[in-house]
Amino acid sequence: MSELSENVTELLKEKKIGVLHNMFHDMMPADIAELFEEIDVDADSLLLLFRILPKELAADTFVLMGQDNKESLIEAFSDRELSALIEDMYLDDAVDVIDEMPANVAQRILSRASTDTRREINALLKYPHDSAGSILTTEYIRLYPDMTVSQSFDVIRATGIDKETVYTCYVTDRTRKLVGVVSALTLLLSDTNAEIGDIMNENVISVKTLDDKEYAAELLRKYDFLALPVVDLEDRMIGIVTIDDAVDVIVDEYSEDIEIMAAITPTDKPYLKQSLFSIWKSRIPWLLLLMISATFTGMIISSFEEALAAQVALTAFIPMLMDTGGNSGSQSSVTVIRGISLSEISFADIPAVMWKELRISAMCGACLAAATFVKIQLVDNLILHSEVSLLVAAVVCMTLFVTVMCAKIIGCTLPLIAKKLGFDPAVMASPFITTIVDAVSLLVYFAFAKAILGL
Amino acid sequence: MSELSENVTELLKEKKIGVLHNMFHDMMPADIAELFEEIDVDADSLLLLFRILPKELAADTFVLMGQDNKESLIEAFSDRELSALIEDMYLDDAVDVIDEMPANVAQRILSRASTDTRREINALLKYPHDSAGSILTTEYIRLYPDMTVSQSFDVIRATGIDKETVYTCYVTDRTRKLVGVVSALTLLLSDTNAEIGDIMNENVISVKTLDDKEYAAELLRKYDFLALPVVDLEDRMIGIVTIDDAVDVIVDEYSEDIEIMAAITPTDKPYLKQSLFSIWKSRIPWLLLLMISATFTGMIISSFEEALAAQVALTAFIPMLMDTGGNSGSQSSVTVIRGISLSEISFADIPAVMWKELRISAMCGACLAAATFVKIQLVDNLILHSEVSLLVAAVVCMTLFVTVMCAKIIGCTLPLIAKKLGFDPAVMASPFITTIVDAVSLLVYFAFAKAILGL
Repeated sequence: MSELSENVTELLKEKKIGVLHNMFHDMMPADIAELFEEIDVDADSLLLLFRILPKELAADTFVLMGQDNKESLIEAFSDRELSALIEDMYLDDAVDVIDEMPANVAQRILSRASTDTRREINALLKYPHDSAGSILTTEYIRLYPDMTVSQSFDVIRATGIDKETVYTCYVTDRTRKLVGVVSALTLLLSDTNAEIGDIMNENVISVKTLDDKEYAAELLRKYDFLALPVVDLEDRMIGIVTIDDAVDVIVDEYSEDIEIMAAITPTDKPYLKQSLFSIWKSRIPWLLLLMISATFTGMIISSFEEALAAQVALTAFIPMLMDTGGNSGSQSSVTVIRGISLSEISFADIPAVMWKELRISAMCGACLAAATFVKIQLVDNLILHSEVSLLVAAVVCMTLFVTVMCAKIIGCTLPLIAKKLGFDPAVMASPFITTIVDAVSLLVYFAFAKAILGL
Repeated sequence: MSELSENVTELLKEKKIGVLHNMFHDMMPADIAELFEEIDVDADSLLLLFRILPKELAADTFVLMGQDNKESLIEAFSDRELSALIEDMYLDDAVDVIDEMPANVAQRILSRASTDTRREINALLKYPHDSAGSILTTEYIRLYPDMTVSQSFDVIRATGIDKETVYTCYVTDRTRKLVGVVSALTLLLSDTNAEIGDIMNENVISVKTLDDKEYAAELLRKYDFLALPVVDLEDRMIGIVTIDDAVDVIVDEYSEDIEIMAAITPTDKPYLKQSLFSIWKSRIPWLLLLMISATFTGMIISSFEEALAAQVALTAFIPMLMDTGGNSGSQSSVTVIRGISLSEISFADIPAVMWKELRISAMCGACLAAATFVKIQLVDNLILHSEVSLLVAAVVCMTLFVTVMCAKIIGCTLPLIAKKLGFDPAVMASPFITTIVDAVSLLVYFAFAKAILGL
């Protein structure tokens, strides 16, 4: 790719406009947008490059560019260029562009849109950020039940080129109430005189505008749809969510989950484009919060200082106990978090999940305790001559067993409780579980030490 | 949903076949499959329920059922039923079903397929598990450049009902070499006498059969395609990958990443359906491995036992230093792992990433060290009267600063190195980073303690 961008920079310098135009003609919008991100030119050259683009690729390419490029182009566009661009964009794309721009730039875009477009954009802008409404497009094929198949093809031909998905047509009555769905394939296979009302599928699955956009994406995935209709509270058709937007929602959702699980406030800007300050801001609150929680673990150690001083061998096992507990707990929590997000596990499954984790943790705990016992005898005592007494070994192994059990039970229940309370279950991943399990493992450790070693 | 399944069980008991048939008629295959998973009936009743399904829903529903239900149905089917089912299934679905069955069941299915179907299935079964070939279907619409638009519609009408995606048609020459692509929308908007060769887009993006299936899914997502052609090494068209399969690949990939990041061997069976032993097996090797690594951290503590005995206050800060280091490191590693999987970061970016993390870690480290210093003075000394000396506070804060820097640098480089060496970068998430950073933080801690406190 970087060879290509050098090539383009070179052609631009030599003003080989025709060559560039032909080159772009054979490229996909996503690739041109990527090229524009990579290439290092000033705002004027960027504008020039954009103007060289074949007209039919311009809007699609613009939508796929990074925010900085979009902003600098909008500032450089003439009023007429901006108007043309807005009308060429799909409505949901225009809304996304406006959404990510600073207020004054957003204002300028809206002021250049036609009255109709502006009204539609404003309506879409009102939907909450995480709703199905926020990703819908109002451009879809609408048919009436009393139309014939050949009339329907006329509608598709007349409006199709502007529609995001023409392959699923929605049938409404005259009050715009959704009554059926018919695929382009069904139309193709039907007699041209057949009435839509007779060939449509009345069993339509739809979402409401205020439903969660992740729910809409999940339905598209579950039923292998290309588009999903979005209706208002009176079942009147508002628009559609298309599969390409659903895929983006799914990918964003996972990215977000992964970031939250690593104690990072999620963002959607690429890492290399983020400012130092914004990265710092997304990380430091969690680090501080977790650090403060960890000081409680320190306080537990402080209160057993005398016991530790009497049996210095105990200190050496602290990291192993804490780490193993943390790892066991995060295995369970992440398993449950993933199960929740794939809708495989719900709050009602808590007893089943706990019973399963209880048995698995007993199996894991026993195995780890046995391995540690053997390791203490063979490595610590025989090879390193650390002279760990049998009683200390017993304390360590029993702590390990109990810690793993506690860790897995804590790990599997907290995400479900978080979900029930309306929090994102992903918050209950490794960092939080680790912090809690650290304290638990030390309390168990010192309790066994007291009981068995009589400290 | 569970009300529905009780309802169905009741109707089944009363042998109300007609009512059940009508009920299924209005349901989506995905929902019927879910119902069959939920319902608790014996193999005979399951077979009866399946036989009640409207014929056009049977194959789609079967494909979406869980493995246990599929296996029990296949065993119960008559030879004729099995033959009919295989021919009704999409080829790629049939391959998936055969792939997950035990050898003898797979053999029975293949023996009931028609000669043509069996040959095609066998060809598809040969592709490696993670290749684009493994998710392709050979059912697509193929056109020739010298066909007219109306001839093309005849082809779609004649074969369309069996094809997974009819909306993107692929144009090949007589040797099956891929030469162009034309959408159903273009066909609809073109003159019926126009030749395909004149209206097709010659700029086709395709993958090879042995390309990674995640790469194919990524292309479908990037270019918003509904289908992507798969060709062999001579550019001859083999089949297509459809968007619904790409979405499943994307979701599986993320699930897998999340599991690997939590030190779990990935599986694709739902948690509640997995056996205790298989869950145990997916977790215990990692726990053992990480536990053994953590004992090195213990050895570091052992070798500083005397220093710790002389300055008992030092021990209390160990959990906080280890946890904060681990959290800092996993933030960086997960950010980079996510960047790699979204193709935003590559190995060539190592210097840029390191330079960025270096500055961020200095900012985070300074902030955390300052917070800890204030906390020691206010909480430990003023409120708890722990009398932590200024020198000990200095050791703790300097360790914190250096540990955070080391953790973030280790965290951001290891995933990139793993990727370069051909491992999955997700392995370098929290658990491994934590284990490494634990040892680093203790080494730094004791080095500062030695230097400043003269232990």
